[in-house]
Amino acid sequence: MVGKSQIKFIKSLHQKKYRNEHQLFVAEGKKMVQELLNSDFEVYQIYSTDLNFVESLKNIAELVKADDLKRISNLTTPNGYLGILSIPKPKKIIFDDWVVALDTINDPGNLGTIIRLCDWFGIKNIVCSPNTVDCYNPKVLQATMGSIARVQITYLDISDFLKSVEIPIYGAFMDGVSVNKINFPKKGILLLGNEANGISDDISQVITEKITIHQFGEISTESLNVATATAILLHEIRR
Amino acid sequence: MVGKSQIKFIKSLHQKKYRNEHQLFVAEGKKMVQELLNSDFEVYQIYSTDLNFVESLKNIAELVKADDLKRISNLTTPNGYLGILSIPKPKKIIFDDWVVALDTINDPGNLGTIIRLCDWFGIKNIVCSPNTVDCYNPKVLQATMGSIARVQITYLDISDFLKSVEIPIYGAFMDGVSVNKINFPKKGILLLGNEANGISDDISQVITEKITIHQFGEISTESLNVATATAILLHEIRR
Repeated sequence: MVGKSQIKFIKSLHQKKYRNEHQLFVAEGKKMVQELLNSDFEVYQIYSTDLNFVESLKNIAELVKADDLKRISNLTTPNGYLGILSIPKPKKIIFDDWVVALDTINDPGNLGTIIRLCDWFGIKNIVCSPNTVDCYNPKVLQATMGSIARVQITYLDISDFLKSVEIPIYGAFMDGVSVNKINFPKKGILLLGNEANGISDDISQVITEKITIHQFGEISTESLNVATATAILLHEIRR
Repeated sequence: MVGKSQIKFIKSLHQKKYRNEHQLFVAEGKKMVQELLNSDFEVYQIYSTDLNFVESLKNIAELVKADDLKRISNLTTPNGYLGILSIPKPKKIIFDDWVVALDTINDPGNLGTIIRLCDWFGIKNIVCSPNTVDCYNPKVLQATMGSIARVQITYLDISDFLKSVEIPIYGAFMDGVSVNKINFPKKGILLLGNEANGISDDISQVITEKITIHQFGEISTESLNVATATAILLHEIRR
């Protein structure tokens, strides 16, 4: 059984403020919890309605009834597995490969999809401006489909970070050089901006090259969604 | 003022059943309504809180109060513009370019994003299996960002359709030929399958070539999201 104070505590972790205070986050779903168990993430507690799963985990998991899980879950229909894990301490970023940098990404689905894409394309590091949506937000985690277990995400001052790096910075713009014409180097930074406003002005100044995905439609004016743009750019970088 | 029976009628159009019965759909937002007005879509009625906008449209638009708009809107925060338009009658598909075919896409956001991508890459036709989410679903329309005005979408029996066409069919699979190795022809069909189950077995049999987006991550098992996969494949096709 999950006690009242425990329920309150776990539910508080659905909010960023309390995640930061306790340096813990909640992940749900069998695949997600399993992938996090198989990673470097430190487990605080697991709750599950699955007896075999709980027994396989010995001391870190607690068997709970479906009703109890519902009380601590962030999902309308909880799916039997809920883990509480430590937010990892920031590690040094090693610049031996591409790094994705995000300036003010607001939409949880977009951030989650970008994390999943980085995992697919073997990108180990994402850096985010402090005002980018929190990667431990439940909606972000759900959209990562477990990829959060394999991609390191660091929140930092993007402007300072970009000024300090010694590898080329490619920023996605509407008016840059077509990606089809670029030979990407072995390492670099791919910078993507806000859904509505793009890359902010002060950050634009430190970019090595502005790049663009060639548009073929005739009269469309809307830009590509930032997650689909990331998909195409990472594919080109790895090509 | 919008009367009670009118409110009931407009709200009914948020459901597929009534959209089909009346062959009408509701589109919201200034940009969306404007793009539909500039297209071949037939307008049934426009409601707006914007006097200048209403006056510019003469007989087809009605000025309403914010409260009235809230009563007919599908949005939590209506944004001042709501159009009711006719669902266009299916037109003949001309095979002078690529066509995107969708087998059982369930998620409204994915379909909307794919429509937006087709617009970006100048693809004029999408064909969908009858069990694909309705393209006049409010969430789909919102995700298209107005692109619905420029892409023709036809619901039909995908299997019969694919058997009848005389251009090559490329299906997205986990175990196909890498897209990096393919020289795509000037016209063809790009087929994408369901988010969880991929392309169904009976449809797999009529495919000319199975294609795959090369994965670089080491242990990731999850496939790419169908909308991000579409982004990369259309980019490659147009490359």
